[in-house]
Amino acid sequence: MQLGKDLVTLRVRLANVPGTLGSLATEVSQAGSIVQSIDIIEAGTGHIIRDVTISVDGDEHLERVLEKARGLSPAVEILRVVDRILALHQGGKIEIALKQSVKNARDLARVYTPGVAKVCRLIHRFPEKFYDYTIIPNTVAVITDGSAVLGLGNIGPRAGMPVMEGKAMIFKRFANIDAIPILLGTQDTRQMIDAIVAIAPTFGGINLEDIAAPRCFEIERELRERLDIPVFHDDQHGTAVVTLAGLINALRVVGKQFEGISVVISGAGAAGNSIARILHHMGIPDIVLCDSKGAISESRTDLGEDKRELLSFTNKRKACGSLAEVLKGRDVFIGVSAPDLVTPEMLKSMARDPVVFAMANPDPEILPHKAAGIARVMATGRSDFPNQVNNALCFPGIFRGALDARARQINDEMEIAAARAIADLIPDDQRHEEYIIPSAFHPDLSAAVARAVAKAAVRSGVAPSAANA
Amino acid sequence: MQLGKDLVTLRVRLANVPGTLGSLATEVSQAGSIVQSIDIIEAGTGHIIRDVTISVDGDEHLERVLEKARGLSPAVEILRVVDRILALHQGGKIEIALKQSVKNARDLARVYTPGVAKVCRLIHRFPEKFYDYTIIPNTVAVITDGSAVLGLGNIGPRAGMPVMEGKAMIFKRFANIDAIPILLGTQDTRQMIDAIVAIAPTFGGINLEDIAAPRCFEIERELRERLDIPVFHDDQHGTAVVTLAGLINALRVVGKQFEGISVVISGAGAAGNSIARILHHMGIPDIVLCDSKGAISESRTDLGEDKRELLSFTNKRKACGSLAEVLKGRDVFIGVSAPDLVTPEMLKSMARDPVVFAMANPDPEILPHKAAGIARVMATGRSDFPNQVNNALCFPGIFRGALDARARQINDEMEIAAARAIADLIPDDQRHEEYIIPSAFHPDLSAAVARAVAKAAVRSGVAPSAANA
Repeated sequence: MQLGKDLVTLRVRLANVPGTLGSLATEVSQAGSIVQSIDIIEAGTGHIIRDVTISVDGDEHLERVLEKARGLSPAVEILRVVDRILALHQGGKIEIALKQSVKNARDLARVYTPGVAKVCRLIHRFPEKFYDYTIIPNTVAVITDGSAVLGLGNIGPRAGMPVMEGKAMIFKRFANIDAIPILLGTQDTRQMIDAIVAIAPTFGGINLEDIAAPRCFEIERELRERLDIPVFHDDQHGTAVVTLAGLINALRVVGKQFEGISVVISGAGAAGNSIARILHHMGIPDIVLCDSKGAISESRTDLGEDKRELLSFTNKRKACGSLAEVLKGRDVFIGVSAPDLVTPEMLKSMARDPVVFAMANPDPEILPHKAAGIARVMATGRSDFPNQVNNALCFPGIFRGALDARARQINDEMEIAAARAIADLIPDDQRHEEYIIPSAFHPDLSAAVARAVAKAAVRSGVAPSAANA
Repeated sequence: MQLGKDLVTLRVRLANVPGTLGSLATEVSQAGSIVQSIDIIEAGTGHIIRDVTISVDGDEHLERVLEKARGLSPAVEILRVVDRILALHQGGKIEIALKQSVKNARDLARVYTPGVAKVCRLIHRFPEKFYDYTIIPNTVAVITDGSAVLGLGNIGPRAGMPVMEGKAMIFKRFANIDAIPILLGTQDTRQMIDAIVAIAPTFGGINLEDIAAPRCFEIERELRERLDIPVFHDDQHGTAVVTLAGLINALRVVGKQFEGISVVISGAGAAGNSIARILHHMGIPDIVLCDSKGAISESRTDLGEDKRELLSFTNKRKACGSLAEVLKGRDVFIGVSAPDLVTPEMLKSMARDPVVFAMANPDPEILPHKAAGIARVMATGRSDFPNQVNNALCFPGIFRGALDARARQINDEMEIAAARAIADLIPDDQRHEEYIIPSAFHPDLSAAVARAVAKAAVRSGVAPSAANA
């Protein structure tokens, strides 16, 4: 589906007259909409009831389509209008399921009192047994305060819940991990940290989600110090891992090396910060971050602590000025900022074979058709263009690997291993400008990432070598 | 299954000689064990492999049975010994399930970005919409600090997890509620309260579980003040509700009225406290609580604040002395204390037709066979005697009713309504001494409780009258 489009299903009663469905389809397309699918609900004598699913740009567009369709009355009667996305979200998207059936009192006496006491006593006596007899080691908390949900901003935790539930679906679907959304009713850093530490024994890992910068940095740093389970802020590290995965293959396409390139990152929040760090780890010598005021450089007097810290390993050549100025002659542009900040002219000023990752959501820093013929490799965060840089590619496998290895944390080595595993899923003979990143549905994806991550955990000393990995 | 018994499955290879299985069964029973079930796993030529499930009293008993069975070699070979309860708990007992399938990129784009943004925006704009489009209103947290797990004491939160998972199974199985276990890594009252308040937006209700007294009282009281969702400490109120349900029918059996009876409660912790309060609400004029030092009376100088508070509505006749002394002439004994505190002689000293609820777990204050012929109605907490007083009868339906009604709290009126609904499930012509409480598997149980609770919520003003109830 196209980003920003709504799917709406019209239940219609059509007269059994040849051409009726065709006339409806014509009206729909003349109103600027596209028919996505058509189902038969009931075939009567003289009429047929169908569900016609169309894509529209919001409620006003829908109203225009409906008006056109109503003009076909009485051959076409609109019985009901259902928003497909809202319908899918009705009642929420996840639930608790029982791994064992409870059919009678005997079953109940085994999974609850009195039988369960045996298992409790066993774990009390041998604390490591919780790995065998509870859901804890396979459970990840997906925690948000709702302060930076998608591109929507500080909409609060409950409005962010559909994202958290979606995340939990992805965890289960791609890595068989049981993820529990946790909404925090506070945006106070100290209270957030204390609450997460308090509930941490429930989980095998913590996925922080959609928490605004710079608060997210302090929260993650302190949690990593205080907890002995992996803590991973997906907006930072997940984005960094998939960006790196794409960049590995993009550089293979253009025939450049990490050691020889220069990168400009637009956006110095959670994602930009973490991308800069992982690219620095990869040996890129020249990285410049830009925020809305231009390059982050030592000459700036308006920088907060988190941005000042970036200068210890970025902008070694002390570039100053606007994004347009610092982009000149660079090899790679990475955008995690805002729509339409980049023009074709700016891309033309880059070094040969520009690599452009315009990942602002929902609208990228530059649209692919504007970069066509200038950028050699183009990626976005969107599903309706080639090369979608999507966190869902990495976080399930990263946590699967960390949990399998019983890793105490997720470190740089594990993240880089994940990125390499994702990149290497595309064979040399298939890789090209428009195929640098595999699909989230690639059948080997999460297992490959998990294996690489678990190995890296053991190698880097944050997991026992004899673990399940 | 019998309480305290372990179920063990022996996988055995039996020679195809008539009488082999019989000789194994004989040896098992001579070792004091009972064969519970026998399955065929593989029938070969000359041998047959079977799973023989037996009940044993712990590991030493199992060893004696195995020794006897080994004496039958080579006709009987033991291939494997599997503890059935541990096997059922392998990997934990619950998991996250997807309500919508995610088969391809289009599905993903609907339940996650970009499609999910529409739902987030809707909830941000109309905050009440979270009731329609998230799992929040059907989700209950089952929260423990592991300080008073079953009768096992302070075994810590992770050792308590199998109970929390069992509880979540019961919530789903009997009331289709999605319950999430939350383990707290602190037993500090203040930290516990703050953490629960912080994560409360995630849930439609809070079930506190296995938290020690008197900490549990303060935690529940403050949470009820600070949160606008139901907070229910099951060890207090669940126990009180099912006790009251049983007592309603017990009094019908013996032909006595609440207004005319006297009750002694042994145990003044979380459960005893809450039972006393609900019985007081029912109009019982004379209630005496006993702790390990005897009756709680004004002459005691060793009472903490929570026990002193009880005196405002109990022990009006200022009874003093041991449990044996205060039990004389009373109508009802309710035990939530410790094994073997009550003798047949003590029951003989009670008023006519004694009602005895000996609910200490796993071993009651007096075993039914010792009370036989003296107690007119006898109940315990155990599944292997008649009249099991079991919290599982009430908490699923109570929460179902509270969630359906969108109640802000669970109050006395709702609890009493739940107890009456449970009691009334047993028709007049079926009720007798050994059938005062329905089974947890009664098909109408949780719906009947839910209806009664939702109505009581509206009637008592803690739920909007136009809610789903």
